[in-house]
This record gives sequence, structure tokens and C-alpha cells, in this order.
Amino acid sequence: MGERVQELKDYIEGKVGSARSVLRELSSLRTEVKNAALLRAAELLDARRSFIKEENQKDIEFAKENKLRPALIDRLLLNDKRIDGMIKVLKDVASLPDPVGEIVKVWNLPNGLKVGRMRVPLGTILIIYESRPNVTVEAAALCMKSSNAIVLRGGKEAVNSNRVLVSLLREASEQVGFPQEAIQFIDRTEREIVWELLKMEGKIDVAIPRGGESLIRAVAENSRVPVIKHYKGVCSVYVDEEADLDKAYDIVYNAKVQRPSVCNAIENLIIHRKVLQEFFPKMAYFLGRAGVELRCDEESLRVIREDEKLSFVNAKLATEEDYYEEFLDLILAVKVVGSLEEAMDFIDRYGSKHSDSILTENYSKAMRFLREVDSAAVYVNASTRYTDGNEFGLGAEMGISTDKIHARGPMALEELTVQKFIILGEGQFRDNFGVPEEFKKELGLC
Amino acid sequence: MGERVQELKDYIEGKVGSARSVLRELSSLRTEVKNAALLRAAELLDARRSFIKEENQKDIEFAKENKLRPALIDRLLLNDKRIDGMIKVLKDVASLPDPVGEIVKVWNLPNGLKVGRMRVPLGTILIIYESRPNVTVEAAALCMKSSNAIVLRGGKEAVNSNRVLVSLLREASEQVGFPQEAIQFIDRTEREIVWELLKMEGKIDVAIPRGGESLIRAVAENSRVPVIKHYKGVCSVYVDEEADLDKAYDIVYNAKVQRPSVCNAIENLIIHRKVLQEFFPKMAYFLGRAGVELRCDEESLRVIREDEKLSFVNAKLATEEDYYEEFLDLILAVKVVGSLEEAMDFIDRYGSKHSDSILTENYSKAMRFLREVDSAAVYVNASTRYTDGNEFGLGAEMGISTDKIHARGPMALEELTVQKFIILGEGQFRDNFGVPEEFKKELGLC
Repeated sequence: MGERVQELKDYIEGKVGSARSVLRELSSLRTEVKNAALLRAAELLDARRSFIKEENQKDIEFAKENKLRPALIDRLLLNDKRIDGMIKVLKDVASLPDPVGEIVKVWNLPNGLKVGRMRVPLGTILIIYESRPNVTVEAAALCMKSSNAIVLRGGKEAVNSNRVLVSLLREASEQVGFPQEAIQFIDRTEREIVWELLKMEGKIDVAIPRGGESLIRAVAENSRVPVIKHYKGVCSVYVDEEADLDKAYDIVYNAKVQRPSVCNAIENLIIHRKVLQEFFPKMAYFLGRAGVELRCDEESLRVIREDEKLSFVNAKLATEEDYYEEFLDLILAVKVVGSLEEAMDFIDRYGSKHSDSILTENYSKAMRFLREVDSAAVYVNASTRYTDGNEFGLGAEMGISTDKIHARGPMALEELTVQKFIILGEGQFRDNFGVPEEFKKELGLC
Repeated sequence: MGERVQELKDYIEGKVGSARSVLRELSSLRTEVKNAALLRAAELLDARRSFIKEENQKDIEFAKENKLRPALIDRLLLNDKRIDGMIKVLKDVASLPDPVGEIVKVWNLPNGLKVGRMRVPLGTILIIYESRPNVTVEAAALCMKSSNAIVLRGGKEAVNSNRVLVSLLREASEQVGFPQEAIQFIDRTEREIVWELLKMEGKIDVAIPRGGESLIRAVAENSRVPVIKHYKGVCSVYVDEEADLDKAYDIVYNAKVQRPSVCNAIENLIIHRKVLQEFFPKMAYFLGRAGVELRCDEESLRVIREDEKLSFVNAKLATEEDYYEEFLDLILAVKVVGSLEEAMDFIDRYGSKHSDSILTENYSKAMRFLREVDSAAVYVNASTRYTDGNEFGLGAEMGISTDKIHARGPMALEELTVQKFIILGEGQFRDNFGVPEEFKKELGLC
């Protein structure tokens, strides 16, 4: 047992050590070299499609043999459309500005010092993820462009797909002079490896877990390395009394129905009492027609019960727990409120600080909502479904943070950097406390 | 036992709950109210000097009775000079720009959405600190201005001083309409309180420990709350072959001798071999005269041994451990290198990512050092002693981070905020996926 653990540790330390060995080289790598590596990788992915699909097929077959759920198997699949998607990510990331070395601000001090802030890479980033092999390419592309070394720990079920993608990224890197050590793949699948990696404080600079809430909680609780995480998306749309209801139907429908299984879909619909009678019967009709189950408070349930046209709608009384729940399904909890204040209280209490939207034509209410709602992405008059690195124009995303420090929301290039201080001097020393004149005289220096 | 723990938990939850109850109010508080509270507090501190000193005297006497070290007792002391210092911090922080609500950037998406980033408070900040009661005022002032709620957990030895300072801050707040709940003081001194506070994930948004390395390690290892921390300051000055040596003597002397007990003093001096003979005998003389003990590598030790004038210098061969050590004393480790590369390797290996300085007149080397040295504050031609929120023009500091995420170096107003996304829409929903026409027709809507 002890021997096996030691062997695992040696394996991991080799990988992480190799990643760290190129950190300084990465920090001063020219943007053109980074872009060349990304674009060459895009070419290789295109040229080796059949090889990628072959390797992917091994994972798919293994998954089928092991009777994984069809939804999981679908996430594993790399078809031409998904390969196109990865190629697009590589090209998009190449086209974005390089954040590394950017001097954000410089100011003068009275003593003549110039103090500034420079964006620098975080260092070595560990990403722990499940199933989707395209995450391998997205995460690596963002790290390559932001001069971070990456340690990729994908799911066991995708190990063949991930391995081939990493080998192509490294091959492309080598061809253009980008240090391939910056891309490390954990190709062994023992579970203990994750826990050992999370002990490497000071060697791994940040860990980003992507996956189910239980995985993420386990990582957060067991990590000595700082973790940036995303627990869940309990998002809401608030339909204000001054909402443009014609817009509201489409936005709410989109936010709930388009893709209920993702974190930026809504789980709660909050409606101002004054528009309940006008808005909710139609909205409930549309949602009901799409097969959405409604979990309503008493007031909104009454509206449904009183309307014969809505007798087909699957609706019942919500429990307190329903409002906290990330359904990830065609289920929506409904709450009626009497004011913007109450709506924001509701979001504070039940939301997960992910994405929340107000629908209103009232300027002051929109401004208050933007300022006061403490979520990673706060919307006015739009669907929460846009919370995504690519949709926001960031090229891709390393994950979405619902944490309160470092970064909130989709994390892309800038979020994979941090600012250090730079100080440009001309011989300054503090408080005029230098070598005493008498010491200098003793050496005949003045 | 169980009852006592429950009672402690209730006490803490009361404090933290009270802090959280005003978070939304804080986030939209006008700058003028925040400034008024800070300036009123400055007035109260000035008006109540004798009361402050009386309460402080209780701590001093208790410390003397318990035979605390004189250096610790000195840190506890609040005299007129230190009260002036706190008043200055309050006024300085009032005069600085308010970071909250600042919209850092807004960009347009092809679909007409405007996506932007808004600076928002972190939320509830726990600060755990020792002895120096002026930290109470500095930390509270920064949190008040940045719209964060603060939970102050000072050392047992300073509890009377901290209590009176907090009461003045709260009195000032109340007088001008600033919510005093935002300033919470843990006035009980049981040690378990810290561990209970650190379990409050989601209720406390970040913990900042200030104090000895063992305290900080214990906090980091036991916290479920994100921690921003500063372990130690193993700082260095590298005297390059192209350094202006006249500047170098004063800078090195300042960085080591002015205040050896602080984290931004240097512990390592790195010298390029080509200037060793010209530079080091004089430098060793000056340092020796100031009573500095030198721990040298063989090459630099030989220089001292060969020079009669330096026979008085307390010098010996350095061990490997010496280069890692934060002496916090008049001790300096010396290392000779043959290139900038070697100097940066040395800093990578032995430094603590705090503050490092290169002394050189060579432009390219200065640029490389700035870019590649992975420390919170990277200097050219100046003493590392400037690493300090106040010296950098930030008004004060909440602590110095040697972490790699969120913030590096002195943390002040901006570092007590984070950026969220704001999205301004006009009815947008994703991928044209709205309520199907047929559903609308069924309701006779189009």
C-alpha cells in the first residue's frame, strides 16, 4: 500500500514538476508563438479526424459495455460537429488579445517611484472534469494563450479521447516552439490521484473542478490548493410589474425550455403581483405546452386552478425546498412578490449567485437590480441562458465561478491571470535610511 | 460541552447574521455617506484620545502582568502618534476613489446585448489578527469604503483597545446613516471561535489572517471559507553586473537594516560574480558596521576572509536552509551568481513570492526581471521596503497576499472587490428559441 502510494506520488510529481519547469519560459513567450501553437493544433485536429474518432470510439464502446446512461454517452461522443467546435475554439482563442504582461495601470509616487500593475499567469492550473472530451481542448487552449501550465485530469470514461487530443496539442506545440511540458495529462485513472494532486499546495496554484455538485464539494473540502468552483445554478427571472410582457414570454420560455439540463437555465420564476393575472395564465399555458411542470406558491397556483384552459398544465404546490432546488429538468418553481425588494430578497435567499434577470422597462429598478443582486451575472431584459464564455465573447470558458473571490461567472483568459505590482525606481530607498555618512567616511568614500 | 459549543455558535451566528443583513444596503450606499462615516470616525478618535489610551492601558497592564515580550507590548501600545496614524488612515481612505459599482468595461455582442463588468464588494470579510490595535481601524476603514461587512477577530491581548476603537467606528457610523451592523467585533476571546467562524462557508466570503506563520497555516488548513494569506517574506535584492553600485549600497542597506523585523525587509542578497570584488567588500563593511550577521556561500565568504578590514564582520558559511529562512533579524544570506538567469532561478527556489528587486542599468535585464520574477512586487532599482499599501498610495492595507489568486501584494480597496458580469438586454433570448408560433396561435396571440 505504502509503496503504491509512493509510486503514485512519484508519477504525479513528475507531471507537475515538468509543468512547473516551463513556467518562466511561458511567462515571457511571445503571443505569436502561442497563437501559432493554437492554430497548428486546429490544423492537426482537422487532419486527424478519423484517428480522433477511432480513439473516441473506444471510450464509447467501453461506456456502452458498462451501461452508462445515454445522456452521458452522448457527452462523450466526438463527431465531426464537435471536432469543428474544438477547431473553432482554438481559432477563436488565437484571435483574442493576449492578457499576459499587460500593464494595467501605472501611477507616480511623490518620491519618484512608478508603481504599476502587470497581469501575470496564475501558474499551474489543475482542471478536474468529467465525460466531455472537448473540455480538454477548451481548457488547454485558454491556458496556452494565458501562459499557464495545465494539468488535465479528465474522467476515466473519456481517457482515450482525452489522450489523443492532448497528444495532438503537444505535437502542435512542439512544431512551433511552444513548450509542450505546459500541457500535462494524467493518463492514469486511479481515484487517489485526485486527492494527491489536491495536496500539492504551492506546486499547483489553483484547482478548477467541473462536474456534479458532489464532485465539486469533495474537491473543495479536501483541497489544500485554492479552488475556484461552481456549485450549482439556481437562476431566476423576475417579471416586474413594469415588464414588457411580450418580451417576457419568450425570455422565460427560452430560459426554462431551451436546455433545461444546464446551469444557466432558470429554476425559479418570480412574478410581480400586479401583472400576475395578465401574464401568468399565458406563460403557464406556453410552459405547460412545452411539458414544463410548475411548482407554484398558493397565489400563482390559484391562477392556474381558476383557468379552465390551464387544466392540462402539470402544476402543484411548491415546497420550501423546491425554491432551493436545481431541477436541471422541465420543472419550474413559481413565486409571487409585491415589490422589487421582495424579489431581491427571494433571490438572496434561494438563488445560487449564478445568473438572475429582471424584466422591466423601469430605469431605476433596472439599475437597482444590476447593483444589488449579488450574482455572477446580472441581467436586464434578457434570458439567463447567455451566461457562457463563448456567448460573452470570451472565446471559451475554463469553468463558471460562483465563488466570491478572484473571478465571478465564466472564466476565460483574463480570469486565468492575476495582477502583480511592478515598481520602477531610480535608486530609491525608504525614509532616507541609507548607509550612514560616517560608515562611508570610514572607507574614504565621501 | 455540546451546550457550550452551541452557545458559541449562536453568538457567532448572531454577529455574522447581523453583518450579512446589511450587505445589500452597503452595496448601494453613496460614497458620500461612506466618507462621512470615515471622517466622523477620525473626529471621534481625535476627541476621545484619553478614553482610548485609558482602555489601551488595561491591555498594556494585562500584558505586563503576563510577562509578554517588550516587542509585543510595544505593538499593543496606542500613544498619540499611533492615534494620529489611525486618524490619517481614516482621512486617506475617505479621500480615495470608491471602487464599488465601477463599470470596468462594456462591450457589444452581435445580438445587441451589452456585456460589462462591474466591481462589487466581496461581501463579509473575516479578519483574524494579533496585537496591533491599529489594524482594527485600518481594516474597518477599507471595508467601510469598499462596502464590505467586516468581522474583526483581534488578539485576546488587545481586546480592550479593539473594543473601544470599534465602538467609536460604530458611533460615527450611526451618526451619519452608515449601517453600523457592517462592523462586527468578536469581543469574546475563546479560541474555538476562530475555528467555528472558519466553518461558515457561504456566510463569510473570505478570511484574511494576519500574524505569525503558524497562525496563518492553521487558518489555511482548517478553513472552509476561502483564505487570502501571506506566509512569509523571504525577499531579495539582486545586484547585477551592470548595477549602479553607488545606488546599490544604500538600497541593500535600507532593505536589510532599516527594519529587519518586517516582511518586506530582505533576507537574501544575490550578487553577480563580476561585481563581487568591487561591490561586496564595501557592502559587507557597511552591513557589518550595522551589526548584520552574514551567512555567505563559499565565494562571498572568501572575499570577507581575504580582506583584513572585514575581520570584524560576523560572517559564516550559509547552509541550504539559511536561504529559505525568514530571519526577521539582522542576518543576511549571500549568494553569488553568474547570470540573471541564475539569480532568477535562485529567487524561484528560495523566495516566498513577496518582493524582489534587481539593481541594474541594463534595460533588457530590467524588463526580463519584471516580467519573469513571479513575486507579488517586483522592483527595479529600489528597496523592497516599499511593499506596503500606504507606501504604494493605496491608503492602507488589509494585508499582503503572497497567494496566486485574487490579489497579490498589498490588498486595499480594489482588492476588496471583485468583478461581476452585467448584461443589458432589450428582450434577447438565445438561439431564437422563444415561444413557438403555434402555441401563440392557440391563444389567439398572432
